[in-house]
Amino acid sequence: MSYNTFGRVFRFTTWGESHGPALGVVVDGCPPGIALSEADIQPYLDKRRPGQSRFTTQRQEPDQVRILSGVFEGRTTGTPISLMIENVDQRSKDYSEVAVAYRPGHADYAYDAKYGFRDYRGGGRSSARETAARVAAGAIARLVIPEVTITGWVEAIGHAPILYSRFDAAEIDRNAFFSPDAEAAAQWETLVDAARKAGSSLGATVTCEATGVPAGWGAPLYAKLDSELAAAIMSINAVKGIEIGDGFAAALATGEANADPMRPGADGPEFLANHAGGIAGGISTGQPVRVRAAFKPTSSILTPVETINRAGEAAEIRTKGRHDPCVGIRGVPVVEAMMALVLADQKLLHRAQVG
Amino acid sequence: MSYNTFGRVFRFTTWGESHGPALGVVVDGCPPGIALSEADIQPYLDKRRPGQSRFTTQRQEPDQVRILSGVFEGRTTGTPISLMIENVDQRSKDYSEVAVAYRPGHADYAYDAKYGFRDYRGGGRSSARETAARVAAGAIARLVIPEVTITGWVEAIGHAPILYSRFDAAEIDRNAFFSPDAEAAAQWETLVDAARKAGSSLGATVTCEATGVPAGWGAPLYAKLDSELAAAIMSINAVKGIEIGDGFAAALATGEANADPMRPGADGPEFLANHAGGIAGGISTGQPVRVRAAFKPTSSILTPVETINRAGEAAEIRTKGRHDPCVGIRGVPVVEAMMALVLADQKLLHRAQVG
Amino acid sequence: MSYNTFGRVFRFTTWGESHGPALGVVVDGCPPGIALSEADIQPYLDKRRPGQSRFTTQRQEPDQVRILSGVFEGRTTGTPISLMIENVDQRSKDYSEVAVAYRPGHADYAYDAKYGFRDYRGGGRSSARETAARVAAGAIARLVIPEVTITGWVEAIGHAPILYSRFDAAEIDRNAFFSPDAEAAAQWETLVDAARKAGSSLGATVTCEATGVPAGWGAPLYAKLDSELAAAIMSINAVKGIEIGDGFAAALATGEANADPMRPGADGPEFLANHAGGIAGGISTGQPVRVRAAFKPTSSILTPVETINRAGEAAEIRTKGRHDPCVGIRGVPVVEAMMALVLADQKLLHRAQVG
Amino acid sequence: MSYNTFGRVFRFTTWGESHGPALGVVVDGCPPGIALSEADIQPYLDKRRPGQSRFTTQRQEPDQVRILSGVFEGRTTGTPISLMIENVDQRSKDYSEVAVAYRPGHADYAYDAKYGFRDYRGGGRSSARETAARVAAGAIARLVIPEVTITGWVEAIGHAPILYSRFDAAEIDRNAFFSPDAEAAAQWETLVDAARKAGSSLGATVTCEATGVPAGWGAPLYAKLDSELAAAIMSINAVKGIEIGDGFAAALATGEANADPMRPGADGPEFLANHAGGIAGGISTGQPVRVRAAFKPTSSILTPVETINRAGEAAEIRTKGRHDPCVGIRGVPVVEAMMALVLADQKLLHRAQVG
Repeated sequence: MSYNTFGRVFRFTTWGESHGPALGVVVDGCPPGIALSEADIQPYLDKRRPGQSRFTTQRQEPDQVRILSGVFEGRTTGTPISLMIENVDQRSKDYSEVAVAYRPGHADYAYDAKYGFRDYRGGGRSSARETAARVAAGAIARLVIPEVTITGWVEAIGHAPILYSRFDAAEIDRNAFFSPDAEAAAQWETLVDAARKAGSSLGATVTCEATGVPAGWGAPLYAKLDSELAAAIMSINAVKGIEIGDGFAAALATGEANADPMRPGADGPEFLANHAGGIAGGISTGQPVRVRAAFKPTSSILTPVETINRAGEAAEIRTKGRHDPCVGIRGVPVVEAMMALVLADQKLLHRAQVG
Repeated sequence: MSYNTFGRVFRFTTWGESHGPALGVVVDGCPPGIALSEADIQPYLDKRRPGQSRFTTQRQEPDQVRILSGVFEGRTTGTPISLMIENVDQRSKDYSEVAVAYRPGHADYAYDAKYGFRDYRGGGRSSARETAARVAAGAIARLVIPEVTITGWVEAIGHAPILYSRFDAAEIDRNAFFSPDAEAAAQWETLVDAARKAGSSLGATVTCEATGVPAGWGAPLYAKLDSELAAAIMSINAVKGIEIGDGFAAALATGEANADPMRPGADGPEFLANHAGGIAGGISTGQPVRVRAAFKPTSSILTPVETINRAGEAAEIRTKGRHDPCVGIRGVPVVEAMMALVLADQKLLHRAQVG
Repeated sequence: MSYNTFGRVFRFTTWGESHGPALGVVVDGCPPGIALSEADIQPYLDKRRPGQSRFTTQRQEPDQVRILSGVFEGRTTGTPISLMIENVDQRSKDYSEVAVAYRPGHADYAYDAKYGFRDYRGGGRSSARETAARVAAGAIARLVIPEVTITGWVEAIGHAPILYSRFDAAEIDRNAFFSPDAEAAAQWETLVDAARKAGSSLGATVTCEATGVPAGWGAPLYAKLDSELAAAIMSINAVKGIEIGDGFAAALATGEANADPMRPGADGPEFLANHAGGIAGGISTGQPVRVRAAFKPTSSILTPVETINRAGEAAEIRTKGRHDPCVGIRGVPVVEAMMALVLADQKLLHRAQVG
Repeated sequence: MSYNTFGRVFRFTTWGESHGPALGVVVDGCPPGIALSEADIQPYLDKRRPGQSRFTTQRQEPDQVRILSGVFEGRTTGTPISLMIENVDQRSKDYSEVAVAYRPGHADYAYDAKYGFRDYRGGGRSSARETAARVAAGAIARLVIPEVTITGWVEAIGHAPILYSRFDAAEIDRNAFFSPDAEAAAQWETLVDAARKAGSSLGATVTCEATGVPAGWGAPLYAKLDSELAAAIMSINAVKGIEIGDGFAAALATGEANADPMRPGADGPEFLANHAGGIAGGISTGQPVRVRAAFKPTSSILTPVETINRAGEAAEIRTKGRHDPCVGIRGVPVVEAMMALVLADQKLLHRAQVG
């Protein structure tokens, strides 16, 4: 597996920098005969698109996707599907200071340490703009797993969580925060506004659930469904933690409390709990697959931070430019996309081995 | 990448079941000329070995490793290194009930759903015995990264955490719990004993730190150091959560609180904090790389749990046999091994691209 | 490794169909800091470009390459390099008949058998137009291995071979056939003209040599240099045979006749022969690496051939459209590109393992 | 893909040196539920086993295979299958001279150039003994593709080919040469005897055919069936050339002569010829898949050859020890095995993408 490729048999390779002419993704291994047009992809990009509310970066990118290959007469052919999104609203002048001093929390210093230099404009390759390519690929992945429904939401911004007693899936797309709890959304409006005005930023947790995953996807060891999900979601910018099912709470439980008992049901086995998040021994159990991701607060803040410059001298930096005050929010469609991509890959992998 | 292989250029492939004649691992891509004998591997296996205290399973396995290839006149040749560990103390009769009824929390049901049948003896391939192969491979990985020191410890068992004010690295190997806090170890003795006697089990969290990792290992996207660590550690049996640096706590922080400011130091840049756990943008920063893993409580408990049998009928199961009351404890050498394996791979991968 | 990706650490993924809007390639794993612009790639595309003489297809494609990512201020950044070439002169109407009846020797029937349908325009993905993407990637590969010089030539068209006694490397780029023998080129002019006018086609053999490859690239087994070259070159459209060094002639030789004796030389070992084609045990010896490829005659001919249509009924087909009367000719830059791509990958892979 | 692993979803990893304690292979991705015991593998190893006639090396190896994992109650479980073969008849003293001087035609010099030193006993990892592991893995691959029959034979030794007019498949296993032509076998007896007595060696060509491969296996580009076969077979020791179907003869043909016309048949399409060797555009056509491999003469000969020693000084070497006078003969079961391994992998890969 390569530096910029993910997946085993349903694979994708992304390319592009924040301020380059375009970004894109090549999806390889997609089954043939699936109806596909730009209209199947665009809605997911629109969901992730910046500049739609004051709670996200004000960079205006239409994020119009174009299919360049792999589709003939409206159906996938089984050959690689190349998707391209042109960058429109790059303002490279904003990044002059960044070229010299390292922004703490950003990849700046690590990139220079690795490669000797970097495309500093908007973070270059390490920009969250790359996630547009994942979201586009994820839209195709969803078509490979029509039996699965994937739904993500913000579970908390900073110290303000949703209440699951108020959970309403229909609410998620009605507010600017992908919140299933209208009251939490209202609260977050104040919170994020305050952070934005202060030039500060907030962390968030995102939960994502896939229903309809049959029992049997995954593998006993290094292609484990949970291991793949962890890799996929930890590769998203700003993610610092992953949980499957109860996650860290499971470490506090006893074996009795953590058990997911089963009983015969009308349509096969029924589970009385889902502490495991739908995965046992790396393989799906037929229950909803549930993951949770921790997004750190955006590293770009207006408060001056002590740092060094390329010459190794002391410096101070305030990160201007256009940024999301809480990157976790726009993380929702990206987590969903990664989950779709992993599940599509696992479905095909399962088919390879087991038929 | 394959079902039972991990790594990109320094790769390993494990094989073997809990109650088969042996288990093993093939390490491929190891650089040539490294001094290697069984004596370099055995201490790590001994650390992981069961039956050493009453707090782990009473299965008695000597876990003697044998090098079958890849070493000539005491040095690695650059060809694949095959390691084998014979199983000695298999008691398959313990598992007669398991053959029929699914143990909740175990891979039993998912395996049958995937493969149609399974080696039910001791969990077969899904047994934590497989981790012996990882630990053996990890010992070789450590020799590939002599500049790095990897240290893991149990941070909490159930609701009882260590206190970092009492942290003493030298203490870790002095107690049966890999606890850096002697007082916590004493407390855990009571706790684990009680769970063991009750036929119950406990969860735990394990922290692992790698010092000496230079800035620049990792990659911008899908070979990200954090993504690789997440995949590697989430693939360990019973792990349900992963954090890099502050992990989920970062989701509660503001950008100011989460910053890792830098300043010029005597030997290059100095960081004033390490919320990021030594990784920015998927690439090491030169700070200690720090990960945390949540281990769920052992699923094997004596309390009867509602379940179904292979025919789909209602059943009840109490999991007898020999089990760890807290699998997280013996997870410490396994997490260390996975960290070593990922770092060795990333070192060679970095060398491939950057020289 | 994926369906449309080649390489281990220096990898490329191609996409695009003959009559789609564009084709392209993503090069991943390229070392950072290499000077790169379109001007480094275009000359190789121009060499492969159709429509330059009457001996190749008359499709007019400017094959202008555009770098979309991975380069900043004129140097590679270490991130994926996306290259795109727009298709300009597609005439899809030529292919109406092909949509229905299978062209013997083409991928038509096999594609339909695999995927259930296909993009029949110009062969879709199986068109030799895809090789433009390889040639573009190969131009970047050459920059990764500046110590190596790669030179290919046509060795024979049909039954008319060059004479090595007349070999003149400078002649290769002076004629329309990449012939190092001016007399052979003159002879081929008549031969290919006759085939073209008759609507027939001719096979060819292409030889390619890499000088400057140091001893030590390659691997003992499945990443063997010869195995990789065989895979790479056999993946080119119309190639049906591969030889390393003496190839099939070695099967006729005795051990004495086939030996490549060595003696001490001024700059290290000297070899007295190169029957092995510069590779022993899968690893380069420091001699020129030499491969030979057999290109079958173009399957598109004007003589009617018995075939079947999509319904499985008897049919007859004459392949109109614009075709190369001898695809082997334009195979030269493609074989060169594949050799560069394999050698660049092996260089980096060697660096990974051995440093 | 790794240095010692081959395959995409049905993968195998070999390990072991000529004079180590054992050699083996881990087969990963095998479908579950396939009946498998040592008795399914041993006959293929016996066919490849040395010391069975005076025409092969006199090293006596029982080559008894042992299954160490992946099989439960006589059926594959879907987990990795580890196979081990112990080395019994190593005579390392034979190789003292080899430790110092490089044997031309062998991997000695290239290995030292790559790794800095090598296991010189019997060629270490570059010994053809490694092919026992492939043959064992190939026996499992055959069980994955019961619809396919694979038959290989020696087509020529030195300048003495079989006559296809005398081809008798039943004859192949009746003589020591895998010859389908009894008269050729008789002739080879004299030929190989003479070479053996003279301490010389002979090259050979091996042909291998797979019948029963359905149309549709393979892929348009870098997982092309022909590309995979070329990689697999070129990775066998001493192979220097590969042909698919007519191979190099196709380069001499016109498009008309090289066409494989089709017509409707009783059970689907019928082909009137098979110049293509059963593969078009990288995908199987349903015709027999046919490959041909050129084996160079054994490099180990008794005639002194000019060489250098490790210090770079002039030397002369006669290769004593026990060697095959014509390695191509025992190449037959190895080519068969590689073909089975590639086809099994392609079958599963096809299933992954197309279902």
